[in-house]
Amino acid sequence: MDLLGAPHHDGSPLYTPGPSPVLGDVVPVRVRVPSVPGLAGADADVVLRRWSDGEPAVSHARLESSDDTGAWFVADLACEHPLTHYRFLVAGQGRYRWLNASGVRGRDVADAADFKISTAPPPPDWVTDQIVYQVFPDRFARSGAVRTPPGWATPAAWDDEVDHREGFSSRQWYGGDLDGIAQHLDVLQRLSATTLYMTPIFEGRSVHRYDAVSFDRIDPVLGGDEALARLLGVAHARGIRVLGDLTLNHTGSGHEWFRRAQADATSTEARYYTFWDHPDSYATWLSAKTLPKLDHASPALRQRLYEGTASVVARWLDLGLDGWRVDVANMTGRLGPVDLAHDVARTVRATMAVGHPDAWLLAEHGHDAAGDGDLTGDGWHGTMDYMGFTRPMWAWLNGGGPDGPGLPHGLDFLGLRVPVPRLPGPAVVATMREARAGAPWHAWTASTLHLDSHDTPRMRTVTGGGTSGRADRDGHGRALHLVGLAAQMTMPGVPTVFAGDELGLTGVSGEHARTPYPWDAPDRVDAETLEAYQAWSAARRDTVALRRGSLRFAHVGDDSLTYLREHPDQRVLVHLSRAAHPPVRLSLAGLGLRAAEEAVTGVRTPDGPSVRGDGESLLLEGSGPGAGVWVLG
Amino acid sequence: MDLLGAPHHDGSPLYTPGPSPVLGDVVPVRVRVPSVPGLAGADADVVLRRWSDGEPAVSHARLESSDDTGAWFVADLACEHPLTHYRFLVAGQGRYRWLNASGVRGRDVADAADFKISTAPPPPDWVTDQIVYQVFPDRFARSGAVRTPPGWATPAAWDDEVDHREGFSSRQWYGGDLDGIAQHLDVLQRLSATTLYMTPIFEGRSVHRYDAVSFDRIDPVLGGDEALARLLGVAHARGIRVLGDLTLNHTGSGHEWFRRAQADATSTEARYYTFWDHPDSYATWLSAKTLPKLDHASPALRQRLYEGTASVVARWLDLGLDGWRVDVANMTGRLGPVDLAHDVARTVRATMAVGHPDAWLLAEHGHDAAGDGDLTGDGWHGTMDYMGFTRPMWAWLNGGGPDGPGLPHGLDFLGLRVPVPRLPGPAVVATMREARAGAPWHAWTASTLHLDSHDTPRMRTVTGGGTSGRADRDGHGRALHLVGLAAQMTMPGVPTVFAGDELGLTGVSGEHARTPYPWDAPDRVDAETLEAYQAWSAARRDTVALRRGSLRFAHVGDDSLTYLREHPDQRVLVHLSRAAHPPVRLSLAGLGLRAAEEAVTGVRTPDGPSVRGDGESLLLEGSGPGAGVWVLG
Repeated sequence: MDLLGAPHHDGSPLYTPGPSPVLGDVVPVRVRVPSVPGLAGADADVVLRRWSDGEPAVSHARLESSDDTGAWFVADLACEHPLTHYRFLVAGQGRYRWLNASGVRGRDVADAADFKISTAPPPPDWVTDQIVYQVFPDRFARSGAVRTPPGWATPAAWDDEVDHREGFSSRQWYGGDLDGIAQHLDVLQRLSATTLYMTPIFEGRSVHRYDAVSFDRIDPVLGGDEALARLLGVAHARGIRVLGDLTLNHTGSGHEWFRRAQADATSTEARYYTFWDHPDSYATWLSAKTLPKLDHASPALRQRLYEGTASVVARWLDLGLDGWRVDVANMTGRLGPVDLAHDVARTVRATMAVGHPDAWLLAEHGHDAAGDGDLTGDGWHGTMDYMGFTRPMWAWLNGGGPDGPGLPHGLDFLGLRVPVPRLPGPAVVATMREARAGAPWHAWTASTLHLDSHDTPRMRTVTGGGTSGRADRDGHGRALHLVGLAAQMTMPGVPTVFAGDELGLTGVSGEHARTPYPWDAPDRVDAETLEAYQAWSAARRDTVALRRGSLRFAHVGDDSLTYLREHPDQRVLVHLSRAAHPPVRLSLAGLGLRAAEEAVTGVRTPDGPSVRGDGESLLLEGSGPGAGVWVLG
Repeated sequence: MDLLGAPHHDGSPLYTPGPSPVLGDVVPVRVRVPSVPGLAGADADVVLRRWSDGEPAVSHARLESSDDTGAWFVADLACEHPLTHYRFLVAGQGRYRWLNASGVRGRDVADAADFKISTAPPPPDWVTDQIVYQVFPDRFARSGAVRTPPGWATPAAWDDEVDHREGFSSRQWYGGDLDGIAQHLDVLQRLSATTLYMTPIFEGRSVHRYDAVSFDRIDPVLGGDEALARLLGVAHARGIRVLGDLTLNHTGSGHEWFRRAQADATSTEARYYTFWDHPDSYATWLSAKTLPKLDHASPALRQRLYEGTASVVARWLDLGLDGWRVDVANMTGRLGPVDLAHDVARTVRATMAVGHPDAWLLAEHGHDAAGDGDLTGDGWHGTMDYMGFTRPMWAWLNGGGPDGPGLPHGLDFLGLRVPVPRLPGPAVVATMREARAGAPWHAWTASTLHLDSHDTPRMRTVTGGGTSGRADRDGHGRALHLVGLAAQMTMPGVPTVFAGDELGLTGVSGEHARTPYPWDAPDRVDAETLEAYQAWSAARRDTVALRRGSLRFAHVGDDSLTYLREHPDQRVLVHLSRAAHPPVRLSLAGLGLRAAEEAVTGVRTPDGPSVRGDGESLLLEGSGPGAGVWVLG
């Protein structure tokens, strides 16, 4: 599927060149219409259609420039609404093609995939330049401080296997702590990571700490408030930002609020929760009695937790955190007929805007945040999601199990109760585009890209690298994993590496993947994987087009994905393949090149694809899983 | 594109057999999984995925029954939310196919096209059985009563050509009246129409009367309140319901409220409108100074217009109207950052629910009502829209202009400022499915289906039948028009015939199409068109599957559309073609037939398609534009 001839627009600087609009602004929006045989781009009739007080309003775009390869059009978009949606019709000479954020269709389309632009202040500008390194504090590093194991804990030695049986995993305590993290920030820096994201560090009753007993103190077993202050000091000194993890949906049943709530039905805290029948029947996260769900209809709760400068949200930012990742944000404030989710998001954002306008507000959202109306621009900045990148990459790079590549390896497809499928390129690209189409571009570039996390199996296991929990050194699993890495480092969004992925660790579930970092075990490290992580993350850091460019697909095959990242200052071409495939042929003119030599090889995976020219085209070839980047002159 | 092998579900009784749910109900939802070569339907692994407090919840469906042709699965859907959305995964044996309201995809999909079910009381049950006849009161029939032309009017003789120049059309007064309509209800009955929809009849200053000067009295020039009472009496006696037309978005600048508002900035009425600068600068419908926009933030306005039993909405229902069509409902309550549209809809619905639970609330919405969040089940029952049916049918049945079929005839594509395109079957079916997918099934079956209206060119002109305004008797324009008629009478939704369509009238714009009904001009009538309207509307009336059945596409070609309407009591097959096409072959087993003879011909267009069997398949053939219905034994 050759897409170089398709018209394109997105919210990146090349296509939406103006500053972020405020209500009432009129902003230019640009459309690229490539020429294709028999149809000059400049001859197109381009119509902007925007939503205005509920009615479509149409206006013709102006031809801005054109040459042999195509034309640029520009239209004036009036931002009358907090969230303006719009799309383009490319007509003329028998054409009838709608261009929206999911691509081009030769038919009328619904509004769901319209381009969207918000008049809310945009996410902090620094976010889009980050690489995030995710740490599960119990399992990253021990500082050596002597700790007394908490009552709930089953102490483990650092070399012990992870016990991922249900009921055991959350108690298996390895004793990592915040000073341990502070001692090892070089691990982030070798991956060009400039943001540290830690899963919860408030005192809890489990190793994951999503069951906070307080939002007012850091778990003493992690080193307490003082250790956080030390970590923040060391991190900031190195230019590393630190993201906290806050559970607004629920607390632990041991939380001081919940204990008061249960003890006294007339207490203020009793209103923080939903009791069906006080004190023992109450709303929970899914069916976990240990995780009572918060009721955001309570003004007192809101003020305590996230509304105003005295709230938990504000206080820890005051103390130095650079933003929040909000746990199960998609469920927060939602219970049966009640849906306060957007109101919660907006209020947290408003609180942060007062004292910390530069802090990042990232919402966990496992499925379709746009479909839930959760990414309208004035709430969460972006999402930590599995729908727009993780799931498509798993399905494309599914390496099969012990019976061979391409076969189901029995891993549940992220909660879906069926094995991970193996899907062709066009299917996964369609999903990625559709998933992202529902939200403004800014929400996408402020969202994280994950190959896996503390809640999922390791990518290396998905790509066929084994199920032991240890590092994998087999070539095929590694090769596919590194294609996923290349995608992660070359797509819009913030690449987020779960600690240990760079060593080639495996894992069959979220619990199993919470591997203690193998500091002193060279046999538990895959050096080639680490080398590739260093190279690809450095490329991300050093290539503005990869951080801030548009995303335009050039070619999609079952086994290969080829796309352009284009920025006013730089253009790059990315090619990913999961298997040997026929050469992908791209017209030099379509790429804006005079000669193939103008495509300059950047980073490649070992045995990655090669490029050659035949005078008219660029040909991309490879004999197996591989990835490469070329800077276009 | 053979679709008989595709899994199917929708909100019709065969697939969603229970009564309409209330909050907390668990309802059965059924999925049909046909067997296809190598894959038995019964071997599928069917997973129900629903949205639960913001999180996907999955459960396996149970095999209900199976035979050689496929299997039925059933799952329990918990309706925890006012609007529950859900979809199905059909997996197993290498399959990975999501089934949502837009069809089947072999990849992950966003939530926008999920099936939806509302726990609000459903639309009145009678609605789905209607055929509506739309009348523009000034142009339908004169009773003979002597009327003094109003001051704004330019009187015309009944035989005069419609003057559709801007600025003239709204003043050209033919003098039709309500008693004239009452005298001609046989015109509805010959088309099996059981609902009369009249564009506004409140006093106005134009022939269209969307510029009401009062909502308290029927225009005296139409016969006044007494004439409406007479019309309602006659209509109800014949079993005909009557739908009014109410403009909640704006009034005329001559409205008594607006005059008071302009005269006194401190008046209650001044708050009904948005004055930028009193008295002469104010918000309007688009840029029409004669149509000041209402501000629904005013509690007094709400009570006067639609909130409570003393409101305009309630009062005219008390007097006998059977429902309201709400003008530009999509713009109502929307102005820049303010969006009260859904609140208005819900309040109108609540008012009607008190004294008139059986009244129909139909909202004009020119584009994507679901995309605007306007069809969640607790507001408008359905829409009068152009996106889900009219536009696709125009694009498919575009008959070209004087230069021949298939060429642009220069008609603007319903406000889009480009000529009507000519698109292939798969494109228009994709649009129809996508347009309807955003809303619950009940909203679709309570929405109207229009080939055209008082606001659009006539369908007969779109199909190439000429631009004169008079009836067309040319075969090709007629043949294509009747294919559109067949679609209108065989699809879910309420067929709505704009008076004169059944005579083959033409028209190049909404104004031009407001043709005086040619009572005494046999030369202005195409008898063959009328005959076809009578036959197809009778088929609609007499065929429960056409009124209440599911919609399952069996085959879609560039030039043909073939679909099943299936109901527990009856199944029918519909075939439409716009041109000669290769025979469409459908497996007898896939249709659930033992022999081709079990498909019994119902109504057909002249020279419509024929059916024959070859032992294994049913073959549908036709040499040109045509349509037919078969009842499946």
